[in-house]
Amino acid sequence: MSKIPVGILGATGMVGQQYISLLNDHPWFDVRFVAASPRSAGKKYKEAVAGRWQLVNTFAAHVGGIIVEDANDVNRAAAAFKKGECSFVFSALEMGKNETCALEEAYAAAGIPVISNASAHRWTPDVPVLIAEINPHHADIIPMQKKARGWDRGFIAVKPNCSIQSYMKPIHALAQAGFHAQKMFVTTMQAVSGAGYPGVSSLDVLDNLYPLKGEEEKSETEPLKIFGSIDNGIFRNAEFPKISAHCNRVPVIDGHTACVSVEFAGKKPGSMEEIKAIWAAYKGIPQEANFPMAPKQPIIYREEDDRPQPRKDRNADKAMAVVAGRLRPCKVFDISFMALSHNTIRGAAGGGILNAELLKYKGYLG
Amino acid sequence: MSKIPVGILGATGMVGQQYISLLNDHPWFDVRFVAASPRSAGKKYKEAVAGRWQLVNTFAAHVGGIIVEDANDVNRAAAAFKKGECSFVFSALEMGKNETCALEEAYAAAGIPVISNASAHRWTPDVPVLIAEINPHHADIIPMQKKARGWDRGFIAVKPNCSIQSYMKPIHALAQAGFHAQKMFVTTMQAVSGAGYPGVSSLDVLDNLYPLKGEEEKSETEPLKIFGSIDNGIFRNAEFPKISAHCNRVPVIDGHTACVSVEFAGKKPGSMEEIKAIWAAYKGIPQEANFPMAPKQPIIYREEDDRPQPRKDRNADKAMAVVAGRLRPCKVFDISFMALSHNTIRGAAGGGILNAELLKYKGYLG
Amino acid sequence: MSKIPVGILGATGMVGQQYISLLNDHPWFDVRFVAASPRSAGKKYKEAVAGRWQLVNTFAAHVGGIIVEDANDVNRAAAAFKKGECSFVFSALEMGKNETCALEEAYAAAGIPVISNASAHRWTPDVPVLIAEINPHHADIIPMQKKARGWDRGFIAVKPNCSIQSYMKPIHALAQAGFHAQKMFVTTMQAVSGAGYPGVSSLDVLDNLYPLKGEEEKSETEPLKIFGSIDNGIFRNAEFPKISAHCNRVPVIDGHTACVSVEFAGKKPGSMEEIKAIWAAYKGIPQEANFPMAPKQPIIYREEDDRPQPRKDRNADKAMAVVAGRLRPCKVFDISFMALSHNTIRGAAGGGILNAELLKYKGYLG
Amino acid sequence: MSKIPVGILGATGMVGQQYISLLNDHPWFDVRFVAASPRSAGKKYKEAVAGRWQLVNTFAAHVGGIIVEDANDVNRAAAAFKKGECSFVFSALEMGKNETCALEEAYAAAGIPVISNASAHRWTPDVPVLIAEINPHHADIIPMQKKARGWDRGFIAVKPNCSIQSYMKPIHALAQAGFHAQKMFVTTMQAVSGAGYPGVSSLDVLDNLYPLKGEEEKSETEPLKIFGSIDNGIFRNAEFPKISAHCNRVPVIDGHTACVSVEFAGKKPGSMEEIKAIWAAYKGIPQEANFPMAPKQPIIYREEDDRPQPRKDRNADKAMAVVAGRLRPCKVFDISFMALSHNTIRGAAGGGILNAELLKYKGYLG
Repeated sequence: MSKIPVGILGATGMVGQQYISLLNDHPWFDVRFVAASPRSAGKKYKEAVAGRWQLVNTFAAHVGGIIVEDANDVNRAAAAFKKGECSFVFSALEMGKNETCALEEAYAAAGIPVISNASAHRWTPDVPVLIAEINPHHADIIPMQKKARGWDRGFIAVKPNCSIQSYMKPIHALAQAGFHAQKMFVTTMQAVSGAGYPGVSSLDVLDNLYPLKGEEEKSETEPLKIFGSIDNGIFRNAEFPKISAHCNRVPVIDGHTACVSVEFAGKKPGSMEEIKAIWAAYKGIPQEANFPMAPKQPIIYREEDDRPQPRKDRNADKAMAVVAGRLRPCKVFDISFMALSHNTIRGAAGGGILNAELLKYKGYLG
Repeated sequence: MSKIPVGILGATGMVGQQYISLLNDHPWFDVRFVAASPRSAGKKYKEAVAGRWQLVNTFAAHVGGIIVEDANDVNRAAAAFKKGECSFVFSALEMGKNETCALEEAYAAAGIPVISNASAHRWTPDVPVLIAEINPHHADIIPMQKKARGWDRGFIAVKPNCSIQSYMKPIHALAQAGFHAQKMFVTTMQAVSGAGYPGVSSLDVLDNLYPLKGEEEKSETEPLKIFGSIDNGIFRNAEFPKISAHCNRVPVIDGHTACVSVEFAGKKPGSMEEIKAIWAAYKGIPQEANFPMAPKQPIIYREEDDRPQPRKDRNADKAMAVVAGRLRPCKVFDISFMALSHNTIRGAAGGGILNAELLKYKGYLG
Repeated sequence: MSKIPVGILGATGMVGQQYISLLNDHPWFDVRFVAASPRSAGKKYKEAVAGRWQLVNTFAAHVGGIIVEDANDVNRAAAAFKKGECSFVFSALEMGKNETCALEEAYAAAGIPVISNASAHRWTPDVPVLIAEINPHHADIIPMQKKARGWDRGFIAVKPNCSIQSYMKPIHALAQAGFHAQKMFVTTMQAVSGAGYPGVSSLDVLDNLYPLKGEEEKSETEPLKIFGSIDNGIFRNAEFPKISAHCNRVPVIDGHTACVSVEFAGKKPGSMEEIKAIWAAYKGIPQEANFPMAPKQPIIYREEDDRPQPRKDRNADKAMAVVAGRLRPCKVFDISFMALSHNTIRGAAGGGILNAELLKYKGYLG
Repeated sequence: MSKIPVGILGATGMVGQQYISLLNDHPWFDVRFVAASPRSAGKKYKEAVAGRWQLVNTFAAHVGGIIVEDANDVNRAAAAFKKGECSFVFSALEMGKNETCALEEAYAAAGIPVISNASAHRWTPDVPVLIAEINPHHADIIPMQKKARGWDRGFIAVKPNCSIQSYMKPIHALAQAGFHAQKMFVTTMQAVSGAGYPGVSSLDVLDNLYPLKGEEEKSETEPLKIFGSIDNGIFRNAEFPKISAHCNRVPVIDGHTACVSVEFAGKKPGSMEEIKAIWAAYKGIPQEANFPMAPKQPIIYREEDDRPQPRKDRNADKAMAVVAGRLRPCKVFDISFMALSHNTIRGAAGGGILNAELLKYKGYLG
């Protein structure tokens, strides 16, 4: 089977680099088109990232030789699409919200599906915010989105903020088992890579940490869209759980850690062991259909009192698994636990690739 | 007025060093007696700490020349007491719980008041756990303690765990104003100095953080004793607030930061501005009587979205003030905020000295 | 005696903030004029730095109320000068080299002495690069500079790069004692604050370090001007020592550390003890005349095998002393040692203030 | 071909863990015997390391089930040897020097070859200190060692200190090309993992660094044994290069970085490009014979001005390659450059495995 040719928008930025690195040996997708800001356009990819490549892993040799296109020039992408060099794009655009919205829509209008890491469309009512194990059925809004927008083949699907990835799957697993979170407290300790490069100044995090006001609202509201339902072509948010979030930046390179306390509505789990068993058995379509980027076990539970830890646990199962720990009865709500997710892999490019695998599996990528 | 001669038990350890450094120029107290483990006994203090002194500030020249006594030898302290070289001791002992309990009691029985940083006696029913602004009236158990124990002049008073210092004063200020916390969620991000020296391995906190199970119970229960009452010669715990704590070690040298959410029982503050005004006006005996170690304003509120921060705020007002910030309505409870306290100064030696100043003021130190 | 009114150019940047903080209680100088970029001009200083203030210490209340001027508008400074609000300026400008050169010259031409932290004029042949203990006689080029430039009262004096401050005084002390360094190897480990704010990305220094090519040439050549002589109205560089420098950025907030090896020309010190005695006795005009900002002892030697250390030693004597250690015979040259200097205090604003004290003492500041 | 059964002495310590992790899928060697302190003896390996496992990678399932032996009990190893469960051992013992010497000799006397990471035997005159690309011919002392000691099959071979690994190969490559280093200055910036676990206190390296006196002599003298020759059954040290070393501990997890300056004796390289070409072409037996643990290219040169960097370069080619950079003419000697090596892989367990591969290839492991 020949691989599907894919493009990367914002290919020279940090998330774009991560996409390219993770797709080096992907069995389904092959990077054939890269686009970035006008500054990089016209250069070979390897020249465009010289001195700016941030990752420990490098990029495939053939990607290094691709000429970078101007991401604003949708016609070039459309031409590549017609020549069979680009079936869909991963968007890692780092523009302002309005520009990103408009540009991603232009790609979709030009017939090119857009699987986006950008936050711009997260609250667009007909755009799904996908976590492949949790709400794969939200992809089914795509035909409605296409129809309403008058788009032929193109569409837009996005992923949520990296800060919520660690606790959404443990909560979803319990909900599937009949234990519905009604109220939650979440305190996140977020890695510096979440702010891109150069991002966080060393003077702000050496021997220091600081609150992240802007992340708190996202952490409180995005889960409600993900747990929501499709209603007449748009998403209707879930009402629960009510979430109160405290977000912090800490001197950790990769890996967002969350301290979580939950009160259930109605039925409560009988024991901590029951919860651990639910988490251990939790699986979604990515696991059942054995997607290339899927972690075998989406939630790994560590019994040690001092886990999870970002440096030791963030890379679990290709950095795609959530690592949970410290599950215990809560003095005020029902349970407390911790959970950890790799923010630039599971929480960004890896999550985007998993979404693409889901959309391919569901037939939305041709 | 001549200064009161004081002794330090555990004088060579990290908290002991902090006591000695902070007492360098104290207007009331003068270090004249130092005791430590048998290994250090017989050496001059400066020799005993050579290569082990951890602080940026050094010790007073006259302290460097004092011969270290064996802390286990209560007779030496009693002799120093008789010679007028030691009116009371600060205990920074780092032994096991049972040994510390026994040794501190032996000092008290020998007529020497013990103002302790050790955790051993925190749950002894007739030993007060003092935060000078919050429960100065708890000192009034001392005559009952002396009588019950058959102690003449000696007694034991302790301070709470450093992890709770940041949020206790903001909560107390609101309670004094009539707004009583009923339920609380607290997530702490605690500095490595809280574990002493060598304490936390660099391999555990470079690019990393980890949960601190052992601190969580202390954070949930000690506040109830501090908010409790004296009943028939012993302390009866308060029933509220119910606290759920998540504690974490983070790569910060000094300064424990807490993310706090509170639900009030009954009456609630009318606005965030009302709360800030309450905090700004908050004062206790240390402020009213202008104790040397007292911060002028026990709670300093910072309006910036990205404060408090440990590196920038921990040293506020001699590192004795709590710095709060990020006050906002909570999506689940009533309010959320952050608070920060210097763990080895306000949370350890500085807090102990403030307690001694309170006990002197109240007439319990002769 | 009334204080001399001084101005700060670039007052809102990191070095500018450091100047303002260090001058809070200065007995000779009083900040009365502050200037920065047009973006800040017209605001009160406290408003201009709101959310940008990087230091632990704050600024004097009266400075917070000063209206920030546009640093490009030399006429405003000249007017302030005429009104007696500004006798000279400290320049902490952060512009490009050519702009800085031109602007500093415009201030000098307007009659305002400029004591600069900027690197722009370091290689201008008639501008002295001063380290107050080492080459105070270089200030004597000022009358020649004024005359050649046709300046009445204004002149320009600068300070060297922060990376060389740690090893220049130990080398100078030995030279004064007759032991002249002929060849030197220097490896620096430099703090992130040396790059200003936001400066170094956290992603570049958490669990990492990197070479600093640009600092190496400065470290090799600036010492030769400082050890040089005035010849016909300009500086002639010394020929020795030949210096080979390796410079590195390390995850340290403040404090540049250098590992140094030296070969002497001709006479060599008889022993390590002789060298330590020379360093202990080393004094310059700042010490002899007891300048407010002068460290009592410019070189403090620590005998411990594991010193100097930036976190523990950078603040020695108001952060104005060099802390040396690890002196030993070298296997290849004559001696090896380490030395440490606080880069944003001694190496920047504190060093600038000390230079101003020297120039005042020598009568060049009216 | 069946794998050779191997044992690990000190299997529960940090280097022992690294051996076990790196041997998970080794094509030649299979861990079948593990020994540690009496405290661990009798437990399954997975139980012995529970809560002490420091690595991100875990251990093979079958190793987890092996019962840990008491490393002091040579008879158990001899029995395992007889049963074909252990052909030789990797020693990662963490005892005192004399005990390690004696115990490793006891294993050798019992017929078991010892490939050691311990420093104890580095200066034993008939024990080779091997870097597989540099001095594979030093292995040829083994028959002489056996004969002199009266050992039948057993022998001892060691590896050098991790601090010298980064610069030895670049120097050796130039020597092979006819350019012999005569004098060298080396300043190392060494990772905390070099001190084991718990090793370096976080209070010593957060926002800090410190000199490492003890590493300096090793860095100056071990190269002379490695560049030395076999003379009448013992090693005679080389006379050159004379090395002056400054060693420092820095807040980096893994990866020792060195700043190096070199003066050649006699013939000098014609250009920096010539040196880079020599490094690029450098190969040894491990590369020629394609050993499993061998890096394809022992020296990787990075052209970027800001490389090498430990976080980005330490894992190059399975963390077995040296990454060099910043080659330039030196102002005092002939050339300056930087080099970096992973201290716990190439500098410890990975280097030990490569040595075993060499000894197997040369026929010394049966």
